[in-house]
Amino acid sequence: MNAPTPAGGLLQPEAAPRTLPPALIESLQVRFAQQFSTTLAVREQHGRDESAFDIAPPDAVVFTESTRDVADAVRLAAQYKVPVIPFGIGSSLEGHLLAVQGGISLDVSRMNQVLHINAEDLTVTVQPGVTRKALNEAVKSTGLFFPIDPGADATIGGMSATRASGTNAVRYGTMRENVLALEVVTASGEVIRTGTRAKKSSAGYDLTRLMVGSEGTLGVITEITVKLYPLPEAVMAATCSFTTLADAVNTTLSVIQMGVPIARCELLDGNTVRAVNAHSKLQLREGAMLLMEFHGSPEGVKEQVATVQSIASDFGGQTFEWAHTPEERTRLWTARHNAYFAGIQSRPGCRVITTDTCVPISRLADALLDSVTEAQTAGIPYFLVGHVGDGNFHMGYLIDPGRPEERVLAEQLNTQLVERALRLGGTCTGEHGVGLHKMEFLQNEAGSGAIDMMRSIKRALDPDNILNPGKIFPL
Amino acid sequence: MNAPTPAGGLLQPEAAPRTLPPALIESLQVRFAQQFSTTLAVREQHGRDESAFDIAPPDAVVFTESTRDVADAVRLAAQYKVPVIPFGIGSSLEGHLLAVQGGISLDVSRMNQVLHINAEDLTVTVQPGVTRKALNEAVKSTGLFFPIDPGADATIGGMSATRASGTNAVRYGTMRENVLALEVVTASGEVIRTGTRAKKSSAGYDLTRLMVGSEGTLGVITEITVKLYPLPEAVMAATCSFTTLADAVNTTLSVIQMGVPIARCELLDGNTVRAVNAHSKLQLREGAMLLMEFHGSPEGVKEQVATVQSIASDFGGQTFEWAHTPEERTRLWTARHNAYFAGIQSRPGCRVITTDTCVPISRLADALLDSVTEAQTAGIPYFLVGHVGDGNFHMGYLIDPGRPEERVLAEQLNTQLVERALRLGGTCTGEHGVGLHKMEFLQNEAGSGAIDMMRSIKRALDPDNILNPGKIFPL
Repeated sequence: MNAPTPAGGLLQPEAAPRTLPPALIESLQVRFAQQFSTTLAVREQHGRDESAFDIAPPDAVVFTESTRDVADAVRLAAQYKVPVIPFGIGSSLEGHLLAVQGGISLDVSRMNQVLHINAEDLTVTVQPGVTRKALNEAVKSTGLFFPIDPGADATIGGMSATRASGTNAVRYGTMRENVLALEVVTASGEVIRTGTRAKKSSAGYDLTRLMVGSEGTLGVITEITVKLYPLPEAVMAATCSFTTLADAVNTTLSVIQMGVPIARCELLDGNTVRAVNAHSKLQLREGAMLLMEFHGSPEGVKEQVATVQSIASDFGGQTFEWAHTPEERTRLWTARHNAYFAGIQSRPGCRVITTDTCVPISRLADALLDSVTEAQTAGIPYFLVGHVGDGNFHMGYLIDPGRPEERVLAEQLNTQLVERALRLGGTCTGEHGVGLHKMEFLQNEAGSGAIDMMRSIKRALDPDNILNPGKIFPL
Repeated sequence: MNAPTPAGGLLQPEAAPRTLPPALIESLQVRFAQQFSTTLAVREQHGRDESAFDIAPPDAVVFTESTRDVADAVRLAAQYKVPVIPFGIGSSLEGHLLAVQGGISLDVSRMNQVLHINAEDLTVTVQPGVTRKALNEAVKSTGLFFPIDPGADATIGGMSATRASGTNAVRYGTMRENVLALEVVTASGEVIRTGTRAKKSSAGYDLTRLMVGSEGTLGVITEITVKLYPLPEAVMAATCSFTTLADAVNTTLSVIQMGVPIARCELLDGNTVRAVNAHSKLQLREGAMLLMEFHGSPEGVKEQVATVQSIASDFGGQTFEWAHTPEERTRLWTARHNAYFAGIQSRPGCRVITTDTCVPISRLADALLDSVTEAQTAGIPYFLVGHVGDGNFHMGYLIDPGRPEERVLAEQLNTQLVERALRLGGTCTGEHGVGLHKMEFLQNEAGSGAIDMMRSIKRALDPDNILNPGKIFPL
């Protein structure tokens, strides 16, 4: 979803806010003028994400252009105890952005400046509205890159807030490992900094990592410093097809256990390969498939490839099909990233219930195969993609919105899948976050003591519960 | 320091507790019998660490043998609002363990079981009293290892609590990146779990990383799950001497900027090499020196070495001196780890004021060279060791305890060094933690807003301030 364009800036009578006090509206209008909107279309654009939830529009939208804007908006909201929901580009997947208790959406997409590129330290500092692709474009000339790549061209602010990752995480880690420091506006509208550009620190509580993954419930992220990496000297990408999903998973398991520093190791099932071929006009062999990428020196990459080829062949893998040129690689990974949309297109008019779990890699086959069997037995069309090198996979159940029973069935499948992952020692979400959709699962995963601790932290940092209320856990 | 042996278990009249209510003492005696001690010698062993602070003994020591022991001890302490200070092996460096407000030291060194080795998932779960060497011994037969190596043979509990790292962090990260999950006893004596064995998770607030580095002020760590790594197929270690410190630092900078996955890149100055030679009976060339280790496949290691040799030679580095056998490598790294003791031995009868900062690597030369010049100008003997691949270095000022003016001077040097690191965008501690010694610096680094946030979290999780009170920041 692209960042919405603000329509007008004056209060539209047909879109009168449900709950905002008139004095607050007036203050916001005075302070933000054209950056403020209560137009229904704008509000509706900000009350949804890529999840299957119905729209829950905020009462108003402020398009912030600076940290000061964010601080002023939060301070005004705090004064009236009105919810504030940070909004990047709307690509989250679990209902994070829905204004379930009304309030103000803070659209930070105009805060899209790359502030400092410190190439010699392999760091870059950006505003929250910079997208991952824009960031990579900005640092291209330095020979460095930022590896974290959720499917969508998400904002770095949103990716920090949800602790996102993607296909490269198996080698480069997630936002947890790659955010060095943040600037954050607190619930009272104060601006603080967490962390420095130093690579390591033991200086007090790790506020950076507390904010990363807090989904806008503990503060509004207004600046992010992330790590960069030298572009690898050599890159090779290949696909390998297998007779069964289990063979593909077991190949992955061995690759990880042998410590091969593979940069990407992605799984699609045959069903999903078919959808990707149709959507991206590719001719991939339609069976369980690993899509792999190898980064390193020319010799190092050759060694990795030889090791992985040998493992794959032990599990009956076909000959590797290579993406030889950078263009072919881009096409392959774009196709992989578009698996979500390919899935949707494979059932015209459908909506998707996506899910996301991560298990210890030795339990991945159990987690994944049983979930596929259940979906097939239920007769719900689905797609399956996995960052299997990390033990992380997603299923998308493609439901007919006109048939409520399909939604019920999809949610049942999701419940079975997540509960199984928890039984296997895994987590209810590897990278999408909790939002609204995983709240109950989080309770099961973390237990009441840990949830109480989260709740205590939330109450301490946001006593009036104005920061993205109603998400992650019930207060 | 080795774990102390409890002496007796009965209250010694000459060591009557200063502040513990008699009813609490009685309850502790009933519950813990021989695991409870108020003997002066035992208390004194638990009221110090490797810092230069004077001893501040706790009023009593409980030798916990299980999570239940910890929970019961904390619950009793909570009932009487008495401080509780977790104690591993006493190797911390900034005064973390001193009972500055009295209370009970919880010695977890008997909780030294390796609970679960999950070799196929590259994880292991241990009790907090397991030391890093014991952990590596326990997993040896699996072909895996745990890379984090602070100088001392510290406990995994203590290393988690201080967010420790060491020589391998440049490649493998610190405790921040390597702790997957914890079991923690909260301030009320409740047992919670943070995280799972899944490699990634976006499931709620990152309580694991909040606890890591919280220095016993937010909970008592009773179980730790950490990542393991396959032992590298090939390992090569070498030293390289340089004419100047600047040349050694600039070599490091280029190595990191080129993305060489070097496993260890340590700096000693000539002064420190001399002390190490004397202490460990080595014949290292006495000048600025890098000690390096390369991990990978045989070909990969050769490539890394060739790249680094070429960079070093651009900066006038001498020919690499190789540690050819595993025994030679162990000797070399043991000597490096003993640099602290070598430093102490170089000035008989001295005490050490150590410090620890980390800066963005491009600022390392500035940070380090000025600090050396200042120490030399002041005429205080010192040693200098650096995990320079991370921009992290330590100085130890060797002071005569009989001459208080030396202590003042050393603290002045420390202040100049840390303030310079902060000006250069760094942190006041890369891996030692804040303890008592860095409290003021942390205020400068984090700013009042971030300190207020830490304070809010502390108050929310430990309302009676019983968990290691008086550390990190003033409440």
